[in-house]
Amino acid sequence: MMEFNDTICAPATVPGTGAITVIRVSGPEAFPIVDRLFRGRRGKVCDAPGYSILYGTIVESELEERSLDEVLVSVFRAPNSYTGEDCVEISCHASSYIAAQLLDALCRSGARMAEPGEFTRRSFVNGKMDLAQAEAVADVISSSSSAAHRIAMTQLKGGYSQELSEIRTALVELTSLLELELDFSEEEVEFADRSRLRALLVSASGKVHRLSDTFRLGNAIKSGVPVAIVGEPNTGKSTLLNALVGEERAIVSDIAGTTRDSIEASMVLDGITFRFIDTAGLRESSDWVESKGIERTLKMVGAADIVLALVDPTRSPAEAQQMLASLTARLDFSSQILLVLVNKMDLNKNVKDINNFVSSIDSYGDVVLISALSGDGLDELRSTLVRLVEERISGTSDAVLVTNARHHEALRHTAESLDTALRALDAGTPSDLVAQDLRAALHYLGTITGAVTTDEVLGEIFSRFCIGK
Amino acid sequence: MMEFNDTICAPATVPGTGAITVIRVSGPEAFPIVDRLFRGRRGKVCDAPGYSILYGTIVESELEERSLDEVLVSVFRAPNSYTGEDCVEISCHASSYIAAQLLDALCRSGARMAEPGEFTRRSFVNGKMDLAQAEAVADVISSSSSAAHRIAMTQLKGGYSQELSEIRTALVELTSLLELELDFSEEEVEFADRSRLRALLVSASGKVHRLSDTFRLGNAIKSGVPVAIVGEPNTGKSTLLNALVGEERAIVSDIAGTTRDSIEASMVLDGITFRFIDTAGLRESSDWVESKGIERTLKMVGAADIVLALVDPTRSPAEAQQMLASLTARLDFSSQILLVLVNKMDLNKNVKDINNFVSSIDSYGDVVLISALSGDGLDELRSTLVRLVEERISGTSDAVLVTNARHHEALRHTAESLDTALRALDAGTPSDLVAQDLRAALHYLGTITGAVTTDEVLGEIFSRFCIGK
Repeated sequence: MMEFNDTICAPATVPGTGAITVIRVSGPEAFPIVDRLFRGRRGKVCDAPGYSILYGTIVESELEERSLDEVLVSVFRAPNSYTGEDCVEISCHASSYIAAQLLDALCRSGARMAEPGEFTRRSFVNGKMDLAQAEAVADVISSSSSAAHRIAMTQLKGGYSQELSEIRTALVELTSLLELELDFSEEEVEFADRSRLRALLVSASGKVHRLSDTFRLGNAIKSGVPVAIVGEPNTGKSTLLNALVGEERAIVSDIAGTTRDSIEASMVLDGITFRFIDTAGLRESSDWVESKGIERTLKMVGAADIVLALVDPTRSPAEAQQMLASLTARLDFSSQILLVLVNKMDLNKNVKDINNFVSSIDSYGDVVLISALSGDGLDELRSTLVRLVEERISGTSDAVLVTNARHHEALRHTAESLDTALRALDAGTPSDLVAQDLRAALHYLGTITGAVTTDEVLGEIFSRFCIGK
Repeated sequence: MMEFNDTICAPATVPGTGAITVIRVSGPEAFPIVDRLFRGRRGKVCDAPGYSILYGTIVESELEERSLDEVLVSVFRAPNSYTGEDCVEISCHASSYIAAQLLDALCRSGARMAEPGEFTRRSFVNGKMDLAQAEAVADVISSSSSAAHRIAMTQLKGGYSQELSEIRTALVELTSLLELELDFSEEEVEFADRSRLRALLVSASGKVHRLSDTFRLGNAIKSGVPVAIVGEPNTGKSTLLNALVGEERAIVSDIAGTTRDSIEASMVLDGITFRFIDTAGLRESSDWVESKGIERTLKMVGAADIVLALVDPTRSPAEAQQMLASLTARLDFSSQILLVLVNKMDLNKNVKDINNFVSSIDSYGDVVLISALSGDGLDELRSTLVRLVEERISGTSDAVLVTNARHHEALRHTAESLDTALRALDAGTPSDLVAQDLRAALHYLGTITGAVTTDEVLGEIFSRFCIGK
């Protein structure tokens, strides 16, 4: 499978920061190239077993024995390395000068500087990981919450690829059944049991659709679950945002309509990142700037996974009902959650009034009583938010969530091709046309793990990696 | 020698940048602590030989088997490690999230976060390196030119410590000769041959003085050789600075006295860093601001290792002579070099005039003909600068240069004590008083390598290191 005949090198850590810098070398000539510069106390890299470490000196160049640094050299023998090739990791002092000199010396000794993502690309081409796993490497690195990190780790460890592989196997079986029929088509025999074919197709399509549908949640967990804070002017939206994230992000004033732009702040709660979005008050406005703000608010509501609707129990229930009615009309409850927050509880001491107010609005969604100002009820709100997202995660059939837009696109195309195949099957379309749709579905599915790929796609994916990865 | 009973951990590279992050763990419990979290494909860290690498998974905590990352673990067994203790380096994906979680898990499993420089401090205390070598680690990391890097490497490899050790041995011999005499003082016998004692003392003192004297050059190489550009107003000093560093650092105009502040720009030439300092023009000035500038210029001249004096051959030789005479009166030629630059050669086509002009001033120093404007002669100037510094470096007896202010201070004190001892010896002072001076000298010398040290001094030195070093 090895297609690379050159040897690459790059820093795997940023030189000049921290205590050590690690320089990676990978390729068929990795050992002899490093040996030209390395003077080990216990022999050469070429003679060292895999997964061993040598201590010694790196000299300035093949021609200049002056020592550049004292280093540790980790040796990995093909195929048991990250790239699947012979690999050396040189751990030197964290000096930009040393790193630059060492890379220069390596290049003069026969290596070349790696392109971004080239180590991982080699790992993929050499069959050490599939494309979805390679992409998970980048996701693992950029994960900043435990939920996002777990999804990326599942993908890196191949859980996601396993899921895709099962769907792929089913589709290959389907296609071969249809093609078997085609081979005997002249004899007008229908080998395949159409109802069994249909059942297989429906099952595969269902799996692909389910996987594709996890993207909204997967992406939300990766980038942060968008939570829109909406409500009539002066119900305390900005105060709530500030209270939730614990800093002054939004300007708070008594003047209704103070927030005209949307203000966003992120917060990790129990390992899940939430992106709280404070919006302009929802009301008919004659102020042009503010009405622009309301337009933007409605857009934010559309993009949010969770909508927190603030109502003020000191005002009339009818006002709250009107706002909630117009809001619910705009929500898609298959993917969006509405939480009604009765705010300003610090101002309300009359239990009966509150109960009456709550019962007049609790048909619109779950109600939480809070005081954004005093902080009462915020802990309950936070744990409710975490619980809602965790329910969604555990609600996905298999804990595999799609987080990558490229995968989502491929899954959408796969699902479309399967749906077309299903319609064709139901319409009694000839088997060769149905098989064509199935092959299209297999193609799209194959692009995710890289079973089907092009240099262009690979270039596009790996160029987004950093040098040295 | 081991005095540490706890196990420390810290990132050795900056998490979240690059491809991998390395987390260091060191101490008596390093292996069992890592084994609580590491699930290796080929067994435990405890069972692995030193200088070997294990591949496996790190779990989130002892109680939570969910995998945090796939890692490589490098195993170093005491005393064959950086610190001299059992040591583990965990190489994980370069994610701040993973690094934070891993460090947290290590601390919950029995390690604690290392203080700045604590790994190197343990290395010193465990006798893996002396104090001068430990300090060289920081110098190696911060070296940005090949000359500075080589000095730091010599020090790291112990060349400097070797030099000090020889002086120390001589002083110990001297002291014991004197003390032998003291033991028999009641018998009024002079065992030690005074002239031999004197010769030993003179030789040791000479070595210490020479080493101490290398500080000016060593420090210049470490921080950049200061080169002051001086001359009468409008002789092209700023143009020269810009031409040398290849960018517009100083404002150039035809108005004499444009440069009032000193402007500095650094440049590495052939591995040596030069700090070029453009100064205000040297002349008597009635302008208060400008005369302040001239005062500062004279200060810069005093601090420079090389002074470039620009003269304009279109003006009268007498004017140039006057400037050069007042300049040379201020220079200390034992440590300072003067180069006379005849500038504006682009304006001078008459060879005879130039020859006459040059011969009128060449008694003041080496002359280089240049045109800062056209760039003529600048290559010769650059190579002259490099040659002058290289001559100084090779002029030092042993290629060991003192670059550390703490060491310089200790060497100065050592030299003073030796000089006092010598004067005492010559004055026929009793041996016990001479021996006291020698013991003081030995004390100061010992502070450099850490043979004599205090917790306070160690704290001061290692607190300047980064975490993880």
